[in-house]
Amino acid sequence: MRYFGTMSAREKIPVAVLGATGAVGQKFVRLLVNHPWFEVGALAASQRSAGRPYAEAVSWKQPSQIPLDIAEMTVQSCWAELNCPIVFSGLDSSVAGKLEQEFARRGSWVFSNAKNHRMDADVPLVIAELNSEHLQLVPLQQEKRGWHGAIVTNANCSTIILALSLGPLQQRFGLKRVQAVTFQAISGAGYPGVPSWDVLGNVVPYIAGEEEKIESETQKILGGLGKGRIDSAPIRISAQANRVPVEEGHLQCVSIEFHDPPSQQEILKCWRDFGGLPQQLELPSAPPEPILVCNQPDRPQPRLDIHAGKGMSITVGRLRPCPVMDFKYVVLGHNTVRGAAGASILNAELVEATAGREG
Amino acid sequence: MRYFGTMSAREKIPVAVLGATGAVGQKFVRLLVNHPWFEVGALAASQRSAGRPYAEAVSWKQPSQIPLDIAEMTVQSCWAELNCPIVFSGLDSSVAGKLEQEFARRGSWVFSNAKNHRMDADVPLVIAELNSEHLQLVPLQQEKRGWHGAIVTNANCSTIILALSLGPLQQRFGLKRVQAVTFQAISGAGYPGVPSWDVLGNVVPYIAGEEEKIESETQKILGGLGKGRIDSAPIRISAQANRVPVEEGHLQCVSIEFHDPPSQQEILKCWRDFGGLPQQLELPSAPPEPILVCNQPDRPQPRLDIHAGKGMSITVGRLRPCPVMDFKYVVLGHNTVRGAAGASILNAELVEATAGREG
Amino acid sequence: MRYFGTMSAREKIPVAVLGATGAVGQKFVRLLVNHPWFEVGALAASQRSAGRPYAEAVSWKQPSQIPLDIAEMTVQSCWAELNCPIVFSGLDSSVAGKLEQEFARRGSWVFSNAKNHRMDADVPLVIAELNSEHLQLVPLQQEKRGWHGAIVTNANCSTIILALSLGPLQQRFGLKRVQAVTFQAISGAGYPGVPSWDVLGNVVPYIAGEEEKIESETQKILGGLGKGRIDSAPIRISAQANRVPVEEGHLQCVSIEFHDPPSQQEILKCWRDFGGLPQQLELPSAPPEPILVCNQPDRPQPRLDIHAGKGMSITVGRLRPCPVMDFKYVVLGHNTVRGAAGASILNAELVEATAGREG
Amino acid sequence: MRYFGTMSAREKIPVAVLGATGAVGQKFVRLLVNHPWFEVGALAASQRSAGRPYAEAVSWKQPSQIPLDIAEMTVQSCWAELNCPIVFSGLDSSVAGKLEQEFARRGSWVFSNAKNHRMDADVPLVIAELNSEHLQLVPLQQEKRGWHGAIVTNANCSTIILALSLGPLQQRFGLKRVQAVTFQAISGAGYPGVPSWDVLGNVVPYIAGEEEKIESETQKILGGLGKGRIDSAPIRISAQANRVPVEEGHLQCVSIEFHDPPSQQEILKCWRDFGGLPQQLELPSAPPEPILVCNQPDRPQPRLDIHAGKGMSITVGRLRPCPVMDFKYVVLGHNTVRGAAGASILNAELVEATAGREG
Repeated sequence: MRYFGTMSAREKIPVAVLGATGAVGQKFVRLLVNHPWFEVGALAASQRSAGRPYAEAVSWKQPSQIPLDIAEMTVQSCWAELNCPIVFSGLDSSVAGKLEQEFARRGSWVFSNAKNHRMDADVPLVIAELNSEHLQLVPLQQEKRGWHGAIVTNANCSTIILALSLGPLQQRFGLKRVQAVTFQAISGAGYPGVPSWDVLGNVVPYIAGEEEKIESETQKILGGLGKGRIDSAPIRISAQANRVPVEEGHLQCVSIEFHDPPSQQEILKCWRDFGGLPQQLELPSAPPEPILVCNQPDRPQPRLDIHAGKGMSITVGRLRPCPVMDFKYVVLGHNTVRGAAGASILNAELVEATAGREG
Repeated sequence: MRYFGTMSAREKIPVAVLGATGAVGQKFVRLLVNHPWFEVGALAASQRSAGRPYAEAVSWKQPSQIPLDIAEMTVQSCWAELNCPIVFSGLDSSVAGKLEQEFARRGSWVFSNAKNHRMDADVPLVIAELNSEHLQLVPLQQEKRGWHGAIVTNANCSTIILALSLGPLQQRFGLKRVQAVTFQAISGAGYPGVPSWDVLGNVVPYIAGEEEKIESETQKILGGLGKGRIDSAPIRISAQANRVPVEEGHLQCVSIEFHDPPSQQEILKCWRDFGGLPQQLELPSAPPEPILVCNQPDRPQPRLDIHAGKGMSITVGRLRPCPVMDFKYVVLGHNTVRGAAGASILNAELVEATAGREG
Repeated sequence: MRYFGTMSAREKIPVAVLGATGAVGQKFVRLLVNHPWFEVGALAASQRSAGRPYAEAVSWKQPSQIPLDIAEMTVQSCWAELNCPIVFSGLDSSVAGKLEQEFARRGSWVFSNAKNHRMDADVPLVIAELNSEHLQLVPLQQEKRGWHGAIVTNANCSTIILALSLGPLQQRFGLKRVQAVTFQAISGAGYPGVPSWDVLGNVVPYIAGEEEKIESETQKILGGLGKGRIDSAPIRISAQANRVPVEEGHLQCVSIEFHDPPSQQEILKCWRDFGGLPQQLELPSAPPEPILVCNQPDRPQPRLDIHAGKGMSITVGRLRPCPVMDFKYVVLGHNTVRGAAGASILNAELVEATAGREG
Repeated sequence: MRYFGTMSAREKIPVAVLGATGAVGQKFVRLLVNHPWFEVGALAASQRSAGRPYAEAVSWKQPSQIPLDIAEMTVQSCWAELNCPIVFSGLDSSVAGKLEQEFARRGSWVFSNAKNHRMDADVPLVIAELNSEHLQLVPLQQEKRGWHGAIVTNANCSTIILALSLGPLQQRFGLKRVQAVTFQAISGAGYPGVPSWDVLGNVVPYIAGEEEKIESETQKILGGLGKGRIDSAPIRISAQANRVPVEEGHLQCVSIEFHDPPSQQEILKCWRDFGGLPQQLELPSAPPEPILVCNQPDRPQPRLDIHAGKGMSITVGRLRPCPVMDFKYVVLGHNTVRGAAGASILNAELVEATAGREG
């Protein structure tokens, strides 16, 4: 399997960011600055932004300056020929569907944060540490669709955080039932996103479509590679999604039931020992420890713990027996890094590194 | 059964507030202003406050002025003879245990919001609409302890809100298992309570002792009156308690499993039809509808819905099937009114009204 | 001067609310429920809402239920004939200009919260307690424009709160220079208003057009009635406007300089003694004390003090000498009650009551 | 002038942190990790903490892990002999006075963030870029007090941010009058600091002692080195201090009046061109640009701009004419970095570098 050409030690791979002026797009830009393998070769956004310098077109809302060389790049239309073998999509779902297909058709590998193609049978939904074997769907996808490029998706922000904490347990012990209640940060809704009147000093116990995504995407990620498709993991999952007045970081209260419950110590060890291909390959965005276990009784907390592993580690805590299921615990992750842009980039690194090995 | 004398139509019953300068005490004071049956006859607090006018001793933190006649009352020591047949206790648990016993010994009926005596076998833990029959423990308590007065407790703020939503379902259909994840307001921790550095833009997934209280107190409230004690309801309950940056109002995401599941419509009807003795007797603090069902998909919300029934109604919403248990829903209540001071006052009204009828 | 007919003791005056589904419109609706003189006769909004029941057309964001009889009213188009002698305008400024003129032309008295006509030479900008004599512009306005109706405006939310604190001092002692720095609540921006990402845990030191409004509107309100126009008060005013993560209540830090400085005690007495026509006439929405002086060193505070006088009193505190000007103090008011809908209603009551007296 | 010995290229100078478990102490620890010149040689705190490993003694509240080698250090008593030539004091003012003197007496240079000695006539109050010449008070201090060590203080967090923006203007153009209204983050109050009930969704328009500190400390910093003392700058300054629900970053709205007003462009240029000894010497903690000028109309904002210059730059914006004074603008700085621990460290670097040059 050969992906998109040999990576030279000297030349970085030009990548495009679609939806570059949006909240996820800005995060892509921020994470790609000084990336050792990739360099931003194109920024694309809506017609309204096209033709303008990025610094003018964007309403930059990150707690840092716009990188200087990026600031002066001219934003292109998302329909333009961008000539980048790798494309990161932070597009809104209203336009992502067709645009991503078009880029894949033209030969780019599209690493997408949009929801549109996640549940397509021939599209891998990947957490790089967990189910890299799902990338084997790609040749089928290319053949079926007649593409030279491909679409690889990452999951919804809450799903990634939950699934990353469940994955090692599922692989090692076998899960039966999962309940998750989320406390989601406002950044997950993009910009302008949640009106302050709705969320300041308040909780909104509803996020449209979120619970369904968490339930079905988790089953796909934890599922096995079947005949030309993923067989969803036979785990019953129930999610309850809530918005809270937190800036960054999705926290979840999780209850789990196993077919054959391990001990509390075995679970902790399983999390602590966990690592995947990204760690073995020492990919640039891979955190040394994808799952951190914290011991303080009142942690993890969004404000204190989201930066673990530069935003790419999740943190679990408070593992304890559950009177109703087997165990309950708290998990936290950085929703716009591990849960969005960082996940896409890590997937791209994984594909690139694997190609390098096999090419 | 005769409680504390006939209520005259013309004379209000003098009541004392213990811990009157604290957060719960302030709420008692606020709710007792213009009460049709009760009038504040004594305000008691620690030695530091004793002897000073209330307006000076208290650091008033309510969004209203201190009632004028209350402002000038002299705060007494909690060990003083207060000469009030009814005593409301907003005491801290570090001192509530002995003080409440002392008042009961001297002949007062103590309606307590403190945790100390809630789980005592001979002390009723009462939600007025749900388990008023638990008040039948009082004669046993009096006999056993040699008291003329009594201690009647109300539950933890989260417990009351959860149990009030579960009670009608348990009575009507029989519950098997319950999972509750709380989103608790800062007011639940009193004053100074939670440091702003811990909770601003953050979630703290831990409240010391809270989960155990929710689990055990709910079982007692929903339990049946046995031989001189309450037999805990055989429901498996698991709680996960969290602090969120909300000022007032505890919201909970709940999943429930029945022995024999009713339909969604039956549950909604059960909640809508629910009422108890307080509603039949039209007690002053009884909300016409103890449980409000809201239909908007994103409600209840703390900021918009806590004032329902003047803070004495809980609001449920989002009832829907649960892939793991039978149903899941959201419940919200005003933690310092229905969940604390208002609950105690309603219990006192219930006792008073029942006595009136029987005396 | 006869305004809009005799008010019968038995019949309430039908009033229309323009922009009834918006944030200010909702506040009008809430404040008009059970009004002793007025009743909501028409609700008007954009074409999108017209024809639908109010409860369906509105995204109700108030911390209370929609009043039942209002909920079922059919929303009308703002261009419809509404047949109400009094019209309250909560319209967005993009449409308020022409629509308000149209209603005045047809014979209604329009009490407007929109900015469009505030600075028109023949339109009174009224704080009922301060400058009711500015209503004498109305006959000129009617004559000049050939209207039977009229437009009466109230000021920007920050302006009203500031000007109400300055007015008595200006009338009594004569002000020379004023500096005001505002801490404005998010509700002032309407709905959806300020994105949560911008304001959660943050301060935005800019509100478009706000500083200019505070400066010029205050000068007009405090100005004198000249020949067919208002002569702006010759006070130099500098405003700095900021958005803070507060739900309701605009707080301001003010510094003032007099031509001939009074003592601190004289200022306090001036504020405490202050009242105007609304208090003399005991208008329904008039607070008994328009200006409350609080003594605690750390007050007023938005969350604790906005409800003073049912939201119609402002609260001043911390008056102290200023090393740069003469004195400095803090003032707080409820921005959507005294600063918006409540101000319009009080103006209407004033006009109505005056007409009653003179008619 | 020789300070505390030659700095070897290979050996770092051991420094002690007093009050190491407190909020400021934690920030010192965080900023000193990987410092090129200093290494943490001792951590000292109260008796309660002494003898315990730092990781146990501290309630770590920083958004990062405790540095590993620091975590295992044993906390010492503040009265112990710490054997560090440089001591950073994050002590509470209740104990800082005597302890800092004791360390100076024993021969250490104490760089203190406490308020106790700031206004002592022989103690320099230093912003490294602005008034390094005030360090010439040290020999007088040593002689007068008979010390080998010294006390060098930095100002209150709000003062540093304000004074750093005023300093270049004072040096270049001469200021006459200044008004500053602060929006201060909760981190400025330490831990537990401000109760969440006081500040969530609220503004507290009072911080005890803060306004006086801002006024007098600014005058001392901007003052000239006289005969054995600092002659306060003859600028009239008025401060109004407020707490807002922001985590980190003090923002201020400032109005200024000059003796002979420069143009707006001259002020901007003066800020942009500003630098001091720390920039010339390229001190490790010195930001390349101590004052950043931002052009967006709604900036600086705490959440977006505090990290400028790694927290050591202040950001100014919105410079515009003031109808009452000459100009008004907004300034923001990181209150616990530039406004506290970072300021002390920069002062120590300056002293060290100067010694190195002269030694």
